[in-house]
Amino acid sequence: MFEKIDLSKQIEKKEYNKIMKDIEIRLGQLQREAKDKGVPVIVVFEGWDASGKGRIINELILPLNPRYFSVFTMHEENEEEMRRPFLWRFWTKTPEKGDMAVFDRSWYRRIMDDAAEGIVKGEALETSYGEINSFERVLYEDGFIILKFFLHISREEQKKRQERMGKNPATAWRIRESDKRQNKKYEAYMQAMQRAIEETDTERSPWTIVECEDYRFGIIKTLMSFIEGMETGLARIDRQREIVANAQIIRNMRSQEPHETAGNGSSLKLNGIKSSVIDKVDLSLSMDKQEYEKRIAKLQCKMRLLGNELYRAKIPVVIVYEGWDAAGKGGNIKRLAASLDPRGYDVVPISSPNDTEKNHHYLWRFWKEMPKTGHIAIFDRSWYGRVLVERVEGYCSEAEWKRAYREINDMEEHIVNFGTVFLKYWIHIDREEQLKRFNQRAADPNKTWKISDEDWRNRYNWDSYKDAVDEMLFRTSTTFAPWTIVESNCKRYARVKVLEHTIDEIEKALQKR
Amino acid sequence: MFEKIDLSKQIEKKEYNKIMKDIEIRLGQLQREAKDKGVPVIVVFEGWDASGKGRIINELILPLNPRYFSVFTMHEENEEEMRRPFLWRFWTKTPEKGDMAVFDRSWYRRIMDDAAEGIVKGEALETSYGEINSFERVLYEDGFIILKFFLHISREEQKKRQERMGKNPATAWRIRESDKRQNKKYEAYMQAMQRAIEETDTERSPWTIVECEDYRFGIIKTLMSFIEGMETGLARIDRQREIVANAQIIRNMRSQEPHETAGNGSSLKLNGIKSSVIDKVDLSLSMDKQEYEKRIAKLQCKMRLLGNELYRAKIPVVIVYEGWDAAGKGGNIKRLAASLDPRGYDVVPISSPNDTEKNHHYLWRFWKEMPKTGHIAIFDRSWYGRVLVERVEGYCSEAEWKRAYREINDMEEHIVNFGTVFLKYWIHIDREEQLKRFNQRAADPNKTWKISDEDWRNRYNWDSYKDAVDEMLFRTSTTFAPWTIVESNCKRYARVKVLEHTIDEIEKALQKR
Repeated sequence: MFEKIDLSKQIEKKEYNKIMKDIEIRLGQLQREAKDKGVPVIVVFEGWDASGKGRIINELILPLNPRYFSVFTMHEENEEEMRRPFLWRFWTKTPEKGDMAVFDRSWYRRIMDDAAEGIVKGEALETSYGEINSFERVLYEDGFIILKFFLHISREEQKKRQERMGKNPATAWRIRESDKRQNKKYEAYMQAMQRAIEETDTERSPWTIVECEDYRFGIIKTLMSFIEGMETGLARIDRQREIVANAQIIRNMRSQEPHETAGNGSSLKLNGIKSSVIDKVDLSLSMDKQEYEKRIAKLQCKMRLLGNELYRAKIPVVIVYEGWDAAGKGGNIKRLAASLDPRGYDVVPISSPNDTEKNHHYLWRFWKEMPKTGHIAIFDRSWYGRVLVERVEGYCSEAEWKRAYREINDMEEHIVNFGTVFLKYWIHIDREEQLKRFNQRAADPNKTWKISDEDWRNRYNWDSYKDAVDEMLFRTSTTFAPWTIVESNCKRYARVKVLEHTIDEIEKALQKR
Repeated sequence: MFEKIDLSKQIEKKEYNKIMKDIEIRLGQLQREAKDKGVPVIVVFEGWDASGKGRIINELILPLNPRYFSVFTMHEENEEEMRRPFLWRFWTKTPEKGDMAVFDRSWYRRIMDDAAEGIVKGEALETSYGEINSFERVLYEDGFIILKFFLHISREEQKKRQERMGKNPATAWRIRESDKRQNKKYEAYMQAMQRAIEETDTERSPWTIVECEDYRFGIIKTLMSFIEGMETGLARIDRQREIVANAQIIRNMRSQEPHETAGNGSSLKLNGIKSSVIDKVDLSLSMDKQEYEKRIAKLQCKMRLLGNELYRAKIPVVIVYEGWDAAGKGGNIKRLAASLDPRGYDVVPISSPNDTEKNHHYLWRFWKEMPKTGHIAIFDRSWYGRVLVERVEGYCSEAEWKRAYREINDMEEHIVNFGTVFLKYWIHIDREEQLKRFNQRAADPNKTWKISDEDWRNRYNWDSYKDAVDEMLFRTSTTFAPWTIVESNCKRYARVKVLEHTIDEIEKALQKR
């Protein structure tokens, strides 16, 4: 790929000035169009050191309205970032609808620089290609436009520029050791970069290679390709919306015509054949008060010590609670967290997303809460809402919740690969127990706030939720992050089970270090 | 995932008999519907030895019309298959439109059995997951329905069944050593299988895990899930076709309304900014007759020896020729092949696909021609037609040719990973040279058959082809299979260049062994 590139391309100043005026106008138009249509845009700049990234990015953003874009310069990870899974700092920076995020260096550092330096190789490198493709695919499918530019100069040109910068006191500070190393190891870097581009050049998020030896040419080609990419991307969004609108028009037309009789005739239903995980749960498991108090005290004591050890060993922990309304999640979480140092954990309660959150990818707000090394994040409900409440209540489309299983598994695998202990608890009660608890709550003036019309409505949809729970437990019980079902008709039993299991898993992780 | 499965599920005989009648009728209906709609279907059966695959497959196919399905039992590779890249035997068996292919074991053997046995691991295993996902995605995007079943029994049940089969002389021969090993290493196999399922469970081609300890339950669940999968898949195809039809209806409606003025107003064009690889080719390169004859004789002699060495070293070679009409591909191929043993190579001329080929995925006919170890396949035109003639003449949709770059790169990478030497030549002439040759052909009664109206039409579209050629050379010049541009205004120069380059690359591959 690289050897096919003609680096001698130039543009004359007169032509440049003429065309730049039109380009600037068009850039502004396109930004407004994306804003009006609520389309989020990600622009990635990768390329050789001294290829002129800063200058080109500047030419791109100058004509834009600064309220609707952000530029992120992703140099080496800072301390805070190193303590999070690799994709964390990128996920948290994904723009909201209508906004643009420009990345000066990006997630490609890992499969370019780190691969060239041999820091990432073999199986880990293959995994990284997959993680990056998955990251971009997930955003694309949510309606993002992703444009990627690689700024290319030759080894000789790079050397010349670095020397020139080194001689000038105003710019000398900008050359770092790593930049000089890149020039020395130009061939190895080129191999790694080319491989990275091959593995990630998709029709969803294609690469543009920009010849940058002539700076005018580099600017014009970048901006023109940006314009083309935005036009293509916006046309795709238009087309998708048109499809939905067309279907509505046709439906309206049809509804005025006489009805056809249904021709399908399939009356076969899969009831009872489906795999039900929760049908078989033994809810009679229980524990008397005396035993409970003895055991819970011991376990909490142990948990406190483990919390400290986790901190020293720099292991992050994610604990997810999902379960039926009134299953006892809150009380269970309290018993788990009771003995922990409050500086070492966070309980993250999840309710319906607010406006800002709705304007992002649905995973965005969860990525933000992922714990750093040594910390524990306890999620009271979670991203699994996508395949539970959002599925059942129709808050997202069928295509969206169906692809969410894979999206969630990919996210969890990435976090587990970072070294995180990942625990997921399904707090389970049966329908009768729920009714009993609802009635108790309704009767107790101190608890009546805990029960809402929504709870009753969810209860009414029990069977739909049950299907969703079963499919979730099945499709997202992975080797790296399996679900644990917690029998919770007896709350005491449930609390002890969660604490015991959590302690076991943390001890295993500590032993592995 | 596996530990969540309840293997005790049963179905009573009476219920079974009742429901099977409806199921059989529905299976026949769905096969006819797929046939009528021209939808190809792939059904994969994986699972434990002795889980009852044979019986279940039988129940699936008995109600079907045998003209439109094939069952492939994919046990260990035979000698012929071992000499081809791994996916070859599966690609060549992909069904044509409206047909069904049932696989008793499949491409999953590699990431299940071979992974459990440690034959495939680490980087190679990660690569295999990617290759399999790519294979299924490519078919899905072409409109295939892919349904995958994993038949599950416990270790104890497997052992019981194997012992029972061993005692019965009628079935004892069916138990192989590898089957007994599977029972001994049940845990390792389960790990590998679960991992394989996690990595390949997508909304495009999802897995169904079937509890098979009760054979009636196993059959009913498989067939019901098959029915559900077919209904979902056919509905998807209907929806996609409806989208196209709706767009047409709406277009027709709009065309009767007064025209709106175009609101976009973008007049910026990328001409001259695009990366052109071929613009810079030095077509003045030439060679006089005397030098040519001296060198070609030497090179051909060397090529003959290398052909034999390739055969002994069991290295397969793929050579692709693409180029302008009248660029001299035919003559060039002749000089390359002249000295080779005809048992060791095939020239594969590619013209427009016939009806059978059109009914398959476009890559199918090329997979069939991939050489076995020690053999050379020379393609006179190739799969690159997808991004050249099919793109320019509108024989495929924009979405189709855009995703073809990735599909082609994935295919070539898979073949190269197998150890194949992969050479691609773009035989290049300029427009003036082509005109000269066209006129010569038209004037020479012995050559006039070589020139058609189509050639003149293609020539007329030179600029569109040039864009397509440039993008092809750029997007498919990979580290593992780069293009070589052959300056061919002087045919002698071109022939020597191809022979020299081919010899160099083969020698490199031989040295690496």
